[in-house]
Amino acid sequence: MPWPGTFSKKVNKYPAMDLSKLGEFGLISRFQSRLKFRSSQVIQGIGDDCAVLSLNNGNYQVLTTDALVENVHFNLKTHTPEQLGWKTLAVNISDIAAMGGQPKFAVISIGIPKSFSVEFLDRFYKGLNQASQKYKVALVGGDTVASPKHLFINLALLGETIKKKVFTRSGARPGDKIFVTGTLGDSALGLRILETPGKKWKGPEALGKKLTQRHLKPEPRVAEAAWLAKSKYKVTSMVDISDGLTQDLGHILKASRAGAELWESAIPISKALAKYSLINGLPALDWALGGGEDYELLFTLRSRGVTNLDTESITKVDQPVTQIGVITARKGVRLISKTGRSTVLRRPMGFNHFKGKA
Amino acid sequence: MPWPGTFSKKVNKYPAMDLSKLGEFGLISRFQSRLKFRSSQVIQGIGDDCAVLSLNNGNYQVLTTDALVENVHFNLKTHTPEQLGWKTLAVNISDIAAMGGQPKFAVISIGIPKSFSVEFLDRFYKGLNQASQKYKVALVGGDTVASPKHLFINLALLGETIKKKVFTRSGARPGDKIFVTGTLGDSALGLRILETPGKKWKGPEALGKKLTQRHLKPEPRVAEAAWLAKSKYKVTSMVDISDGLTQDLGHILKASRAGAELWESAIPISKALAKYSLINGLPALDWALGGGEDYELLFTLRSRGVTNLDTESITKVDQPVTQIGVITARKGVRLISKTGRSTVLRRPMGFNHFKGKA
Repeated sequence: MPWPGTFSKKVNKYPAMDLSKLGEFGLISRFQSRLKFRSSQVIQGIGDDCAVLSLNNGNYQVLTTDALVENVHFNLKTHTPEQLGWKTLAVNISDIAAMGGQPKFAVISIGIPKSFSVEFLDRFYKGLNQASQKYKVALVGGDTVASPKHLFINLALLGETIKKKVFTRSGARPGDKIFVTGTLGDSALGLRILETPGKKWKGPEALGKKLTQRHLKPEPRVAEAAWLAKSKYKVTSMVDISDGLTQDLGHILKASRAGAELWESAIPISKALAKYSLINGLPALDWALGGGEDYELLFTLRSRGVTNLDTESITKVDQPVTQIGVITARKGVRLISKTGRSTVLRRPMGFNHFKGKA
Repeated sequence: MPWPGTFSKKVNKYPAMDLSKLGEFGLISRFQSRLKFRSSQVIQGIGDDCAVLSLNNGNYQVLTTDALVENVHFNLKTHTPEQLGWKTLAVNISDIAAMGGQPKFAVISIGIPKSFSVEFLDRFYKGLNQASQKYKVALVGGDTVASPKHLFINLALLGETIKKKVFTRSGARPGDKIFVTGTLGDSALGLRILETPGKKWKGPEALGKKLTQRHLKPEPRVAEAAWLAKSKYKVTSMVDISDGLTQDLGHILKASRAGAELWESAIPISKALAKYSLINGLPALDWALGGGEDYELLFTLRSRGVTNLDTESITKVDQPVTQIGVITARKGVRLISKTGRSTVLRRPMGFNHFKGKA
């Protein structure tokens, strides 16, 4: 969908929201009317002490939560309110997808500084609603509070998985093939572009736009996970790539007590990333290995009978799926170069919330 | 349990937590080891993209979330970290209780400024763990992030109710009897005492302490709601009193499209509140009618066969339950004085997050 222009310079030009005039309950009604997706499993939605839900018998429930903090996870100079609303839901959906689950019900908390406008919130809910409709998630409750200075958002998301098809991190075994959906690194370079508006980026603007869009509007891979859950393949582990390929692979390896070999030439890099990084003298591979917020799925399959998965995935879910290596008994991650040279990745590249880029 | 002394003057004396040294994952492991309650319904707890849960077939699920923001909902001068940890869980449990539910699984997000110490967080998790053990709630995941300036906490809680025993707000009908558990107003006066350390409060210190404890360590009425769900009585509506009796009664009346008559002489006021407000020249009734954060249950019962509920509740759950009025067809809330004079309460007293005290 088309996103409105960036919000950056306007943020303080909107009339202040006059939170005290609308009040907490006025705000809640206002948001409720903006959320269009309805689920028959919602017995009682927004407007009581709790939401009341009817989940399917025989399934497992999957529950996740993610907090987004202004100037830590996002910046109102780079994200429009709509993008922020979309992303708030999308990053949680990605966690549910990584378990092989279907996202179902969300509750959202927003801490709003008094300087924010009603328009900001309306646009935030517009983006949230768009993701909610696309991924069929019912917003069933929340908490709207004042915040002294910075905007913060927390979303908790409940989903369901088939009992026998829960994809945890701990099942990878030596010999299992390692796959990723989509392409890696676009979002991280997109963020860099957004964060350096003064820098003269070389190359076609459309390419830069593609990269920034990957950062601003991630598409969680729910359909891809569902396809794998229904397929004949044995998924032995899965995570979503939020902190960067090597760091998130590290989570699987730690939980599975194994190592991995990654094939440099196989790491899927988009044309946009390849071209744009070449033109601007940046190492595309590093962005793909260490860049965060790809929201692609990283998973391992028991190797028997796994062939042509790439072709099959394109047909079934319109998304490439690429084998990028294998699980090894030997601990650690070895990166095998195009010429066959092996390098041990001493520490994962990626994002640590209290360190910044590691 | 005994709470350690107040945290107020020490908050900046602890060595800074060195978040970057522990890192996000170090913090997660640290907290995980502190959370003692285990549930056999948790298939996968902290340490994956989502928690995996196995809820009971045939029940409804109830989901709620509450955000607590420093200097909006709490103040580190008045709350110890343990109290804050307890309260974070307790206020959400209260919402589940108000639906007639059993709290089960929680996910917590914390936004931590860099100036906070590891000790602060350890003590916060200690209080959280105490509530978790007492109310049998499994902490199954969360998100630990940096915050630029203020501490914020968000907890989302999933519980279960028997399908036929979900207590919403909308079922009250004229003639239904209105009840509350426990006593009202203690927490609000307790907060006032905490917020005015310089003021010379008259009367026994032990009384003041009782009132402040009601504010600092609320006890959600889970057992009381469970007793009512199992009883022969027909609960027609229920809320927990977080914003004050008249405001929360307003929620029931709005959802049920009814009015109410409240009996001034029946409003349950603790001995501590009665004495302390008398000594200090404050109107006890106003605190009971308008004060927030009681975390008592307010509910209505179909009147037939309801007698001696007070005696019965003391026997069954060791908590008074008091009839304070009746639901009326005539809209609005009328307060009937001891002399029988009727006053219309024009607007609810209570807390509006964007207005302060109304």
